[in-house]
Amino acid sequence: MKPRPFPLVLGHEGAGVVESVGPGVTKVSIGDKVIPLFLPQCGQCERCQSPKTNLCTKNWEKTQQGVLADGTSRITCKNQQVHQFIGISTFSEYTVVPEDNVTKIHPDAPLDRVCLLGCGVSTGYGAAVNTGKVESGSTCAVFGLGAVGLAAVMGCKAAGASRIIAVDINSDKFEIGKTFGATEFVNPKDHSKSIQEVLRELTNGGVDYALECVGDVAVMRAAVEACSPAGGVCVIVGWIEVEELSLAPLDILLGRTLKGTYFGGWKSVEAVPRLVQDYLSRKILLDEFVTHRLALDQINQAFDLIMSGKSIRTVIEM
Amino acid sequence: MKPRPFPLVLGHEGAGVVESVGPGVTKVSIGDKVIPLFLPQCGQCERCQSPKTNLCTKNWEKTQQGVLADGTSRITCKNQQVHQFIGISTFSEYTVVPEDNVTKIHPDAPLDRVCLLGCGVSTGYGAAVNTGKVESGSTCAVFGLGAVGLAAVMGCKAAGASRIIAVDINSDKFEIGKTFGATEFVNPKDHSKSIQEVLRELTNGGVDYALECVGDVAVMRAAVEACSPAGGVCVIVGWIEVEELSLAPLDILLGRTLKGTYFGGWKSVEAVPRLVQDYLSRKILLDEFVTHRLALDQINQAFDLIMSGKSIRTVIEM
Ligand SMILES: NC(=O)c1ccc[n+]([C@@H]2O[C@H](COP(=O)([O-])OP(=O)(O)OC[C@H]3O[C@@H](n4cnc5c(N)ncnc54)[C@H](O)[C@@H]3O)[C@@H](O)[C@H]2O)c1
Ligand SMILES: NC(=O)c1ccc[n+]([C@@H]2O[C@H](COP(=O)([O-])OP(=O)(O)OC[C@H]3O[C@@H](n4cnc5c(N)ncnc54)[C@H](O)[C@@H]3O)[C@@H](O)[C@H]2O)c1
Ligand SMILES: [Zn+2]
Ligand SMILES: [Zn+2]
Ligand SMILES: [Zn+2]
Ligand SMILES: [Zn+2]
Repeated sequence: MKPRPFPLVLGHEGAGVVESVGPGVTKVSIGDKVIPLFLPQCGQCERCQSPKTNLCTKNWEKTQQGVLADGTSRITCKNQQVHQFIGISTFSEYTVVPEDNVTKIHPDAPLDRVCLLGCGVSTGYGAAVNTGKVESGSTCAVFGLGAVGLAAVMGCKAAGASRIIAVDINSDKFEIGKTFGATEFVNPKDHSKSIQEVLRELTNGGVDYALECVGDVAVMRAAVEACSPAGGVCVIVGWIEVEELSLAPLDILLGRTLKGTYFGGWKSVEAVPRLVQDYLSRKILLDEFVTHRLALDQINQAFDLIMSGKSIRTVIEM
Repeated sequence: MKPRPFPLVLGHEGAGVVESVGPGVTKVSIGDKVIPLFLPQCGQCERCQSPKTNLCTKNWEKTQQGVLADGTSRITCKNQQVHQFIGISTFSEYTVVPEDNVTKIHPDAPLDRVCLLGCGVSTGYGAAVNTGKVESGSTCAVFGLGAVGLAAVMGCKAAGASRIIAVDINSDKFEIGKTFGATEFVNPKDHSKSIQEVLRELTNGGVDYALECVGDVAVMRAAVEACSPAGGVCVIVGWIEVEELSLAPLDILLGRTLKGTYFGGWKSVEAVPRLVQDYLSRKILLDEFVTHRLALDQINQAFDLIMSGKSIRTVIEM
């Protein structure tokens, strides 16, 4: 990511309970279980009215600058204003957000699991079912088996894909990949050929859907090139702001499609409570993503665990 | 383009009459009017069976190498074998092609007009109606007003687009752009801002469809960036083999789609005769593309005319 305003309270994948509401708030009440949303769904703006996008413009500009819609942050430390990360800041026991930046969820929802629906799991799952529109019987490749990639695998499975090839440079991730529905595993490090060549050979010319869940431009290019020129669709899920993606124009021209997904294409306020229900009715998995639990003051250990590939998600317990 | 085998008879946008057929040929007979196809539709291969692609694999590898399916070229000069351009070579009074590389057209079709359906016009038109799937009421931008771009404009109009913004660095092209349905014209040279910024400002954040009909990676990037992040679709039509397209991953991730079109997405054998019919019934324009006519031995003049932007298409009369 490009540098953000500092100091800043990070965190954007959380869940909580409404502690108090300001004047004029009508959408949630004290005691409601909610999931904070870095992407609101105001329901009023032009984009909220469009079926083609989930990019609600409400509060967008300000929250990208690390402040709330009114230009302030409600977090201070030693009298200094501290910025809020994309409008929410969930690595915190308390936070203040606009009412459009939360959504009320089922009261039975366990907060220490459904928090994952605040970003990664919803994103990966939606990348497959909403953005890629993976078809039944198709062949998919998912690059990167973090929570996002595993959720993409789960989405491909839900969509009825016949083959789900999981790609990661860390073979330790393959076991958990099976839990979510991956049918084959490839570690690029085990091959002298490029991963795109390996995948094209495995699939008679290329996959129908490739989902990039790493955030690396070389992997994005590999994902494009691993797609079948006969209609293959590559979805970029990984986030990278500081490098550019290079492609050979003919790789697109001859018939591949390149798309991207932000928060899985979900319209947040209405979709997240449905995803919570899908978890409660066992249609989607969440427990299996949580490999570790730590207290807030151990959060740097949680970062070490994910960076070293030892965790999928560490839930920070408040 | 990358270098091709040499010597080579160029030309791939033609029309003719079957002069003779070899043993085993059943699809066309002597006297049939036909359009040669650099992209066949054998009807048998896996891709011909798929609704997602027109990339028939029949004869592909050999014809890309400048020879026919059997590895030979049927053109010689002073006893030396001369290569055939993508399986056809139409800058010639006679040529020999496999039967899958022609399609029979209506006997009333004027060859000196329907020849344009052999490549550029079918491609531009199909880029809008097949690949982009331009929607009624949408806002489109077409980059480049050669025959391909003008045909793309015609496709956007046929699809019911409300606004069709034509972009060219040669303002002389704007008059003819109106004939095909462009509603607005922008010359990037008239602006100090980038063309993508100009278009985003003109369209409240970006166009719904951008069609790149130039063949330049900087224009391709501009076309992507001119699209609305809220579901805009960019179609690459221009052909470039020797440079790479660079993009900021977030420009895709947030909600744009990048696609490409080869021969407009048409399944050639069945579609080209229908396009000929559409011309005969005045559903599509062809005459208006033909700005010049020259004899075969004046062909270099025809190249000068198109390179200098003075012609749209020069028909070479045999
Ligand atoms: N588009 C969105 O809205 C959105 C939302 C959430 C997350 N993201 C992005 O999704 C990406 C994944 O997030 P995560 O939480 O799952 O991350 P993570 O770090 O837990 O997982 C990344 C995985 O990729 C693997 N990997 C690294 N290099 C690789 C390579 N060259 N080839 C194959 N695999 C490789 C790692 O071993 C790891 O298993 C990040 O870039 C994140 O920023 C995007
Ligand atoms: N995808 C396919 O299957 C396919 C088929 C046919 C043609 N093509 C390609 O389509 C492209 C167009 O073909 P054509 O016959 O119309 O070419 P053309 O040379 O007649 O037209 C190109 C137009 O682009 C304009 N132009 C040049 N630079 C520009 C810029 N920076 N911004 C805006 N406009 C600019 C020129 O002034 C000209 O009007 C070529 O690259 C050709 O190879 C692709
Ligand atoms: Zn909105
Ligand atoms: Zn996230
Ligand atoms: Zn075929
Ligand atoms: Zn052509």
